[in-house]
Amino acid sequence: MKKKPKKKVSVDKQSTLADLLRKHGAQIYDDLDKGNFPKFSIPSRSVSNIVYDKKIRQYILGANTAVRSSRNSSQLRSFTQLMWLAFFANRLTSQKKSSTLRDVYYSSQAFEVDFEDQAESDNIIVDLEAVLASPRESFHVFPEERSSVFGDLTIEYTVPGYQGKKTNLSDHPDGYAIGPSLTTAELIETSAEVVIAVEKGGLFTRFIEEQVDKKFKAIIVDTGGQAPRSTRTLLKRLHDELSLPVVILTDGDVYGEHIAMVIKSGSANAAHLRGLTVPDAKWVGVWATDIEKYKLPTIPMTESDIKRCHDLLKDPRYQEGIWKKELEVFLKIKRKAELEAFSKYGLTNITDKYLPHKLELAKSL
Amino acid sequence: MKKKPKKKVSVDKQSTLADLLRKHGAQIYDDLDKGNFPKFSIPSRSVSNIVYDKKIRQYILGANTAVRSSRNSSQLRSFTQLMWLAFFANRLTSQKKSSTLRDVYYSSQAFEVDFEDQAESDNIIVDLEAVLASPRESFHVFPEERSSVFGDLTIEYTVPGYQGKKTNLSDHPDGYAIGPSLTTAELIETSAEVVIAVEKGGLFTRFIEEQVDKKFKAIIVDTGGQAPRSTRTLLKRLHDELSLPVVILTDGDVYGEHIAMVIKSGSANAAHLRGLTVPDAKWVGVWATDIEKYKLPTIPMTESDIKRCHDLLKDPRYQEGIWKKELEVFLKIKRKAELEAFSKYGLTNITDKYLPHKLELAKSL
Repeated sequence: MKKKPKKKVSVDKQSTLADLLRKHGAQIYDDLDKGNFPKFSIPSRSVSNIVYDKKIRQYILGANTAVRSSRNSSQLRSFTQLMWLAFFANRLTSQKKSSTLRDVYYSSQAFEVDFEDQAESDNIIVDLEAVLASPRESFHVFPEERSSVFGDLTIEYTVPGYQGKKTNLSDHPDGYAIGPSLTTAELIETSAEVVIAVEKGGLFTRFIEEQVDKKFKAIIVDTGGQAPRSTRTLLKRLHDELSLPVVILTDGDVYGEHIAMVIKSGSANAAHLRGLTVPDAKWVGVWATDIEKYKLPTIPMTESDIKRCHDLLKDPRYQEGIWKKELEVFLKIKRKAELEAFSKYGLTNITDKYLPHKLELAKSL
Repeated sequence: MKKKPKKKVSVDKQSTLADLLRKHGAQIYDDLDKGNFPKFSIPSRSVSNIVYDKKIRQYILGANTAVRSSRNSSQLRSFTQLMWLAFFANRLTSQKKSSTLRDVYYSSQAFEVDFEDQAESDNIIVDLEAVLASPRESFHVFPEERSSVFGDLTIEYTVPGYQGKKTNLSDHPDGYAIGPSLTTAELIETSAEVVIAVEKGGLFTRFIEEQVDKKFKAIIVDTGGQAPRSTRTLLKRLHDELSLPVVILTDGDVYGEHIAMVIKSGSANAAHLRGLTVPDAKWVGVWATDIEKYKLPTIPMTESDIKRCHDLLKDPRYQEGIWKKELEVFLKIKRKAELEAFSKYGLTNITDKYLPHKLELAKSL
């Protein structure tokens, strides 16, 4: 039985963004017509305005806003930069061209808009995200990093030259790069019943080789360490549009645990954004408690691992459940284990034994 | 007019490797039957035995060999490790399972073969490469890193579950991950006339978006910085089997220049291997001399960039032609430029102007 999405969303999203940009542009013209200094109102991203929202289970911005006005000479520079960026974002989206943070920085020079360095332009890009409450991918600024996906999922492209063309993501057994085309494609149908995100390329290959996609009716995603934003967007879409549960498998260490948390609830510095988190995603391992349970070969935690544990224990998201418990166990045993550690019991032990056990467990988590 | 390979090679390769392993195994049994202590003879990888071969244009090992004998108690440990690894490599290839360096390290524990840490097992893997004169990918130890490829190339898989299945690598416009399946696939046919390897994911996406594959009849490869070994293997196969010229485009700095050199002629620590280099590959830019010529925005070189230039100037491969000249210009101007710097002249300047110019130039390099 193939699953189809409840509704197609990506096309709507694009027109909404164009509308938003137009609205902000019209406001600028309006101010000028009325003899007012044009300005932008930006939700404040200062630490004091970042709060954890228990209901939607992610960090969000509070009610404070900052004004970037052309009247104030100290704000004129960043006001101009932001206005140029909105213009450039509109051009990118209407011409359906993709770009990167670095491209935007160099493109500004074509318009003689002055940025000190790329850090300054990156920061203005985040300002525009906050103004539009949309991730930069929506205005075609994509990350350079690519991770991969594999499984029975038919998609239909929306990018120029490929509109209407369909591909099934199980045709290439090394995986499909998750770039602008995949992120913006319509999800047409799938026979999968679960999405398995795994931290490492080696395991991703192992899972495909052992037909985890068929045996467990799964779409497999390689996050390649900390999941790039396009990958998190895809995970969210697979969950929201196709109602697929998402489980995450990482190395058994504090960084692995946090990779899972970022997929689940984002990060504090993306508090101005929705649409990048999968609050229902489940971290199924490798847990600190698995290290003892499965008698895994371990490596001692470093000073920086231990410090990171203590830091996360202060984070509101690590105050309960396995999130808290596993950090505490890591601190107690002071050892960590890699996903490949299961190879001690044979290369397919992880897919034959550990994974089925954890997938079953995930249903009750 | 579609190009087809002169001969199919990957299947032959696999049987040759199995033969080689069997030959070494038989030798061990033979020694035992005759009452001799079994041993391995390994080409020496010490610095004094690494020489640059001008004819094949890469580093190779000299005539010195080291003996790893079970008679010598100080060699018994590494002899045993190497013998186990040959056994494990044979199992991987006959069962057609892929693995990684890390997998091998943990797998050894299943057999109670002792390795101090992963560095020790990595080193023994390189020893086996030297014994077999074959890269570890041939005995199914693959890198975790994945880069991507895109273009009109039809391949036919040889991995289990996909034998005989064909895919065209222009169907997914974000690119296809270059993993074990792609590396071992037969190259069936292509309409391409050139391979363009580019250092950065952002540019790879730009090239696809601007239809560089169609406009210049090209297969586009994203090396993702320093090209992983599977990517270098694919580049070599595209060149050797399909007679396609390979051009390389990198950032305009000393690291970019060396990324191109490694694709062309490998590295000193892979002197024991053939099959990973494309001696005819051409580095077409970004050259130090392009920085002035195209009036590119630049960044100052760091101390470490400058030191690296001086180091490479001592390398026998940087003694002539553009390789030497461009290093000298970098040292003179002490500035570097990124590929994205062309965005100063518009996002498509690099594909509209720079690339066609460089492709034309490549014909005479």
